[in-house]
Amino acid sequence: MPSPRSASPQLQNALDEVAQAVNLTIERLLPETELPEAPLYEAMRHGTLGGGKRLRPFLCMESAFLFNVPSSRARRVAAALEFVHCYSLIHDDLPAMDDASLRRGHPTVHKKYDEATAILAGDALLTLAFEVLADTETHPDPHVRCELITALAHASGGHGMVGGQMLDLIAEKEEENFDVGEISRLQRMKTGKLMAFACEAGAILGKASDPQRKALCNYAHDLGLAFQVTDDILDVEADPQDTGKDTGKDEDAGKATFVSTLGKDAARARAEMIIGQAKRHLKIFEGREKMLAQLADYVLQRRA
Amino acid sequence: MPSPRSASPQLQNALDEVAQAVNLTIERLLPETELPEAPLYEAMRHGTLGGGKRLRPFLCMESAFLFNVPSSRARRVAAALEFVHCYSLIHDDLPAMDDASLRRGHPTVHKKYDEATAILAGDALLTLAFEVLADTETHPDPHVRCELITALAHASGGHGMVGGQMLDLIAEKEEENFDVGEISRLQRMKTGKLMAFACEAGAILGKASDPQRKALCNYAHDLGLAFQVTDDILDVEADPQDTGKDTGKDEDAGKATFVSTLGKDAARARAEMIIGQAKRHLKIFEGREKMLAQLADYVLQRRA
Repeated sequence: MPSPRSASPQLQNALDEVAQAVNLTIERLLPETELPEAPLYEAMRHGTLGGGKRLRPFLCMESAFLFNVPSSRARRVAAALEFVHCYSLIHDDLPAMDDASLRRGHPTVHKKYDEATAILAGDALLTLAFEVLADTETHPDPHVRCELITALAHASGGHGMVGGQMLDLIAEKEEENFDVGEISRLQRMKTGKLMAFACEAGAILGKASDPQRKALCNYAHDLGLAFQVTDDILDVEADPQDTGKDTGKDEDAGKATFVSTLGKDAARARAEMIIGQAKRHLKIFEGREKMLAQLADYVLQRRA
Repeated sequence: MPSPRSASPQLQNALDEVAQAVNLTIERLLPETELPEAPLYEAMRHGTLGGGKRLRPFLCMESAFLFNVPSSRARRVAAALEFVHCYSLIHDDLPAMDDASLRRGHPTVHKKYDEATAILAGDALLTLAFEVLADTETHPDPHVRCELITALAHASGGHGMVGGQMLDLIAEKEEENFDVGEISRLQRMKTGKLMAFACEAGAILGKASDPQRKALCNYAHDLGLAFQVTDDILDVEADPQDTGKDTGKDEDAGKATFVSTLGKDAARARAEMIIGQAKRHLKIFEGREKMLAQLADYVLQRRA
């Protein structure tokens, strides 16, 4: 599948480098096995190694770079983060949830294996994420490791990503549509908080100052929201050949999206406004934040 | 539903006390909420507060007691452990897995709510377990917290409980039955490792010596295996009124169990042999292990 490239060559190189590095780390953390339970690991590998933009790992690696964190440490956190992101996709794709057959141009985990295996593969990936963070290889200081675990749990549990997914289900069922404030809260929980963790993790690894940490969190929250708005736009506009997943699904499912609530043009204007704000948060890093700023621009331009 | 009591009054009192204490801790960690995502929390509460023997919390509290660990700390670990146990039951009960409608005498989470909510409630409980362990209230020393997290992840992930569940699925599908060695490995992963964590957690909290920690792990592994053997026996023998769940399901599903492989009498003899071995591991505690020893006897006598 040809990948549509709208990132600058410099950003694209940086994205490719991070994707390659994090794929190697995932390979090392999830090696093939001859054990009788091998199908579980195959499903976990299928759900994590089948491509993807690796945006969250990129945010994590670039944020860590701001504080000169050794990349071997940042890569492990990036992999843990991707385990959580991918487990959520595997469970989200299940028939009882979004019932998706295609993800990143490949069959979803429950299509390739079966539902039970997909449920278990997601569970094992979530568990592995915390195992990786708790390991001394991630950081020698156990305070840092506990802080990473706490922040990841906050971002991905009931008050974060999973809570946002619950709201998504509720929004689908409700007769009356969610208003923009409610959709924003939903998306902040479902997507924004894990994006924010990606950046925050770099700050935690680098023992950053509070204002630095806060700036990165704010940047990431805005980025996540803008990303969701553009996702909604792509869902109605894009070619499945480009995105590697079914499109028009949100509309078919009667989902509350920024496009259905605001209309496409106002949604795009909102995304632009949010991205401008995201970049302003980064000023505190006095020039070292170029890649993160370029990524923000890319979110507006992406076609997949 | 009347609870059949085959434990000694002393053990029953201790079990009841732990159950009460851990229920209060779970209540505190999972309060009711007015947030729009409330159904998620209701499902989490339904899946964790609907009774249950709280055997794992009991093992954790009693092991911690051997090392004079403050019970407020042990209770938090016990609750985290129960979150993991309950999440696995919620996912295990799903239509794609065991398709169970009844658990502890109540409708299973997906029956009371829906499948999507059950999947998310399980995910959020697993996440919450790690969040609780990473919190300073669980132990002031972050080394201890990281050690707890690592041990829980090992016990419950792909190399532990989830891997065992995968083996269970494979065993159901295979034409040829698993032999006793393979079933023992399956059960050690599916049940034994989390039981072992329950005891190991007490040792970790109490900074126990290696031989003490090893003795508790061995005890718990044996206990877990014996528990599974008696579970298989109860599945063919017990009254659903007593167990609060559907019985005869393993046989109907053509599952490889100790009873189907060894026959009922040999299975009972094996359980007795294992329990004898379990109690011998505890000798190192020179009399302080009475409750744990009584629990081992109870596993053989239980009728639910």
